[in-house]
Amino acid sequence: MSGIYLLNCWYVAAWASELAPGRHLRRVLLGEPVLLLRGQSGETAAIGNVCPHRFASLSDGKFENDVVECPYHGLRFAMSGQCVHNPHGDGKIPERAKVRSYPVAEKYGAIWIWPGDPEAADRGIIPDFSFLDVPIETERAGGHLRTDANYQLLTDNILDLSHADFVHTTTLSTGGDIARCQAKAQVDGEVVSVKWVFDGKGMVMNRSAENPVDVHTEFEVIWHAPGAMILKSASRPVEAETGVGHTRVAAHIMTPETDKSTHYFFDVADRRYLDRVTQIFEEEDGVMLEQIQRNMRGEDLWDLHPAILSSDRGAVLARRTLQRKIRHEQESQVDRASSPAESVEAEADAHVR
Amino acid sequence: MSGIYLLNCWYVAAWASELAPGRHLRRVLLGEPVLLLRGQSGETAAIGNVCPHRFASLSDGKFENDVVECPYHGLRFAMSGQCVHNPHGDGKIPERAKVRSYPVAEKYGAIWIWPGDPEAADRGIIPDFSFLDVPIETERAGGHLRTDANYQLLTDNILDLSHADFVHTTTLSTGGDIARCQAKAQVDGEVVSVKWVFDGKGMVMNRSAENPVDVHTEFEVIWHAPGAMILKSASRPVEAETGVGHTRVAAHIMTPETDKSTHYFFDVADRRYLDRVTQIFEEEDGVMLEQIQRNMRGEDLWDLHPAILSSDRGAVLARRTLQRKIRHEQESQVDRASSPAESVEAEADAHVR
Amino acid sequence: MSGIYLLNCWYVAAWASELAPGRHLRRVLLGEPVLLLRGQSGETAAIGNVCPHRFASLSDGKFENDVVECPYHGLRFAMSGQCVHNPHGDGKIPERAKVRSYPVAEKYGAIWIWPGDPEAADRGIIPDFSFLDVPIETERAGGHLRTDANYQLLTDNILDLSHADFVHTTTLSTGGDIARCQAKAQVDGEVVSVKWVFDGKGMVMNRSAENPVDVHTEFEVIWHAPGAMILKSASRPVEAETGVGHTRVAAHIMTPETDKSTHYFFDVADRRYLDRVTQIFEEEDGVMLEQIQRNMRGEDLWDLHPAILSSDRGAVLARRTLQRKIRHEQESQVDRASSPAESVEAEADAHVR
Repeated sequence: MSGIYLLNCWYVAAWASELAPGRHLRRVLLGEPVLLLRGQSGETAAIGNVCPHRFASLSDGKFENDVVECPYHGLRFAMSGQCVHNPHGDGKIPERAKVRSYPVAEKYGAIWIWPGDPEAADRGIIPDFSFLDVPIETERAGGHLRTDANYQLLTDNILDLSHADFVHTTTLSTGGDIARCQAKAQVDGEVVSVKWVFDGKGMVMNRSAENPVDVHTEFEVIWHAPGAMILKSASRPVEAETGVGHTRVAAHIMTPETDKSTHYFFDVADRRYLDRVTQIFEEEDGVMLEQIQRNMRGEDLWDLHPAILSSDRGAVLARRTLQRKIRHEQESQVDRASSPAESVEAEADAHVR
Repeated sequence: MSGIYLLNCWYVAAWASELAPGRHLRRVLLGEPVLLLRGQSGETAAIGNVCPHRFASLSDGKFENDVVECPYHGLRFAMSGQCVHNPHGDGKIPERAKVRSYPVAEKYGAIWIWPGDPEAADRGIIPDFSFLDVPIETERAGGHLRTDANYQLLTDNILDLSHADFVHTTTLSTGGDIARCQAKAQVDGEVVSVKWVFDGKGMVMNRSAENPVDVHTEFEVIWHAPGAMILKSASRPVEAETGVGHTRVAAHIMTPETDKSTHYFFDVADRRYLDRVTQIFEEEDGVMLEQIQRNMRGEDLWDLHPAILSSDRGAVLARRTLQRKIRHEQESQVDRASSPAESVEAEADAHVR
Repeated sequence: MSGIYLLNCWYVAAWASELAPGRHLRRVLLGEPVLLLRGQSGETAAIGNVCPHRFASLSDGKFENDVVECPYHGLRFAMSGQCVHNPHGDGKIPERAKVRSYPVAEKYGAIWIWPGDPEAADRGIIPDFSFLDVPIETERAGGHLRTDANYQLLTDNILDLSHADFVHTTTLSTGGDIARCQAKAQVDGEVVSVKWVFDGKGMVMNRSAENPVDVHTEFEVIWHAPGAMILKSASRPVEAETGVGHTRVAAHIMTPETDKSTHYFFDVADRRYLDRVTQIFEEEDGVMLEQIQRNMRGEDLWDLHPAILSSDRGAVLARRTLQRKIRHEQESQVDRASSPAESVEAEADAHVR
């Protein structure tokens, strides 16, 4: 996985509910084909999805008794990535017959993957999304979308909620209230948070209602590198007697599929909203972000010299934090020599004397 | 816009009739996304189509009261390209919040754009297409097509009308007459013209008629760099008593969309022919030129060492004239330093102290 | 044609039956557009498919009386590639008006093409496929498929028949017998052969039958560089009284279309099997090989450090033999200076004085 990503960190690879016992799931993550596996007894694993023999996709093979079989020549791999069966000739298992294994963690209803140094994988640093720890089938609403735009465009989008007033004019807009209010952005260690506080005409959590009242609203987005965000929203009538308040906590988690596409995992707290949020994102944010990706023509944001608005504070802080972490990681990385081609040749020689 | 194009010259961006008052029109020209605007009172403008804040396409935003609003975060831009409204926080307009403005001219029923140095934009050098100055709705017939081929392949095509005998065998062919007659090509200053004069069996302006007579025909193509061409045609019976003559003046104007695709603006003098000419070009020339573009695999014509026929004279003269003008322009161009990245960083700094 | 291919050798360009007298056929071979021609009297030729004047595809022009006419400006070319008619002006034929001619040979029911030095084209070195010399319409069954994978992946596939047990589980599988038996691979001069010999439950040539018996099977694949293979199969009941034996000889010939796609010519000896084999290849091998091509991301097999199994012996030997031949050819190649651009310019000058 390339130097453009932060590697020593946890990324959401899937919602836990996407992977039933005995099933496997192909997913491209950080540009690499990954095979997610859940064994018979429920434990999860993530291995490379390409067979080291002739490069077939293991996801097209059978997964039985916690062993995946390559669909081309039948090599079988355990959930550790180690080849455990060679059906050819004397059945000897060649040294190279193993696929990469990624540390995984199942936590907060999600399967997290660690693309960096396995020795450094610390499950304790997964950011706290414990509000998701409720039975997902009954209450919460995990969604997954693919967008053809870089993941930082998707994190920027959530870190600047003011876009709702322009992109979501008929759905989530506050009629200019979010944009007008001066968002407060700050960094606390490596966590960026942005807060919007404003009063406006509307209904509590429902601006399009027929009898709007004066509503006090607070939004907070909390970002953890590289793209895991919590969105807290609270609104209540300014005058208490006109109704009760609402609070909600949602998850918006971006995992790069490639440098030009993103897996967007979201959980909007209430499964009744899943379809609506999915539709809004696909038709409004998704269309916008994919067009921006094309308009940027593969250039880095900073190289395009963007005009910066006050509403960009959170996004700028998050990008800088992430950039610093990636730079730091790359500087401290020990160059590991990759296996020299000569040894493959030697292995081939052994067979063709 | 890249050095492969002549910049200090006028290109047709649209027919005037394509843009009603209060409307905007997205068009890629010379590889750049451009937004054409016509204000309430009829005046036209052309600005970059990508918002300098977050690179959304302005063409997807509203255009009201001569102001276009970015659909992502609501920055508003005047027809000059200057940001005139920032709905965020204190509303201060950042220095970078402006998009490029192109000189435009509305003349001869077309909107012309000048992609080069604005100081040098001289409306007096627009080539004379005054024959188009008739009410387009009633008499003339402006068409617009996109072709996935380099614009010089399209100008070559018109500069060698002999292709009609082979490409348009059932529509515009003269049965070999144009090919056989020796075309006269010449340069007058920077204007290339090619003339074909021949007698042949046919009908005046209609070769496929049932009772052909001996017809005298003259064609002339007049090319102005980089791709604005006038095609004059005249035909009359060789023996005066068999009927009356016809003359016609048509416009064939090629504007690069990218280096691999072209906007083809044509006006065939009589709106009754518009559909037929559109169909002939799409099904015959267009198919041929797109295939040639693929067969050339991105190589320059001269690098492919083409065989040169006598019928290529006009095209060779036009290509050389254009090549000389581009070389001259590039040599005299003063390198302008682009805005240094540091100032963006500084601007970002101002927001994230 | 690029240095990635062996050039001084014969490739199958088409089955002879694909080209009737007076017909032409466009085919991309080794990355180059080629036009196959069969004259009125039955002789075949192969020339470049791109007109040297303006790069139109000759395959879109008429082919009459053994002369092909360019569809753009009417230049006519003989089957030798020489321009024989210029309909323009004085009709003089420019020196550059010729297209490349390739040596061809019609042998064993196929049209073979030699992309290398024409002087070196020796029809005597076409590998012996004389078993194909039967009336193709009545008995044999020549098929042609295109696959979006490098031709060496297709030769590897045939050189390791063990894939049948995993890829063709419901069609050609031996239930693991081929994989288990130790294939014997050897090089004899520059010809690689692989042999599988095994006993197993089944029916002679039909493993899925209801009353399987003990069957003795022998397979042999014989490879000639770069991709012409003969597959001999023989099977008979282990106990002679339970039925009679079968033998069959099939052709599997791979010709690169480009470095990422292949023409697959096959002849499975019995035309009744043509549709079935076509379907099996398209749905099973073809899907697998195209996915592997994508999974390899344009990298060379050896650079990916594959695990090598005993069943890879034949493929490894064939790849090494081919690699050695290509290297040898490149080292002995005399650099020929290509025509200097100046002379085109001079030719153009002659027309635009």
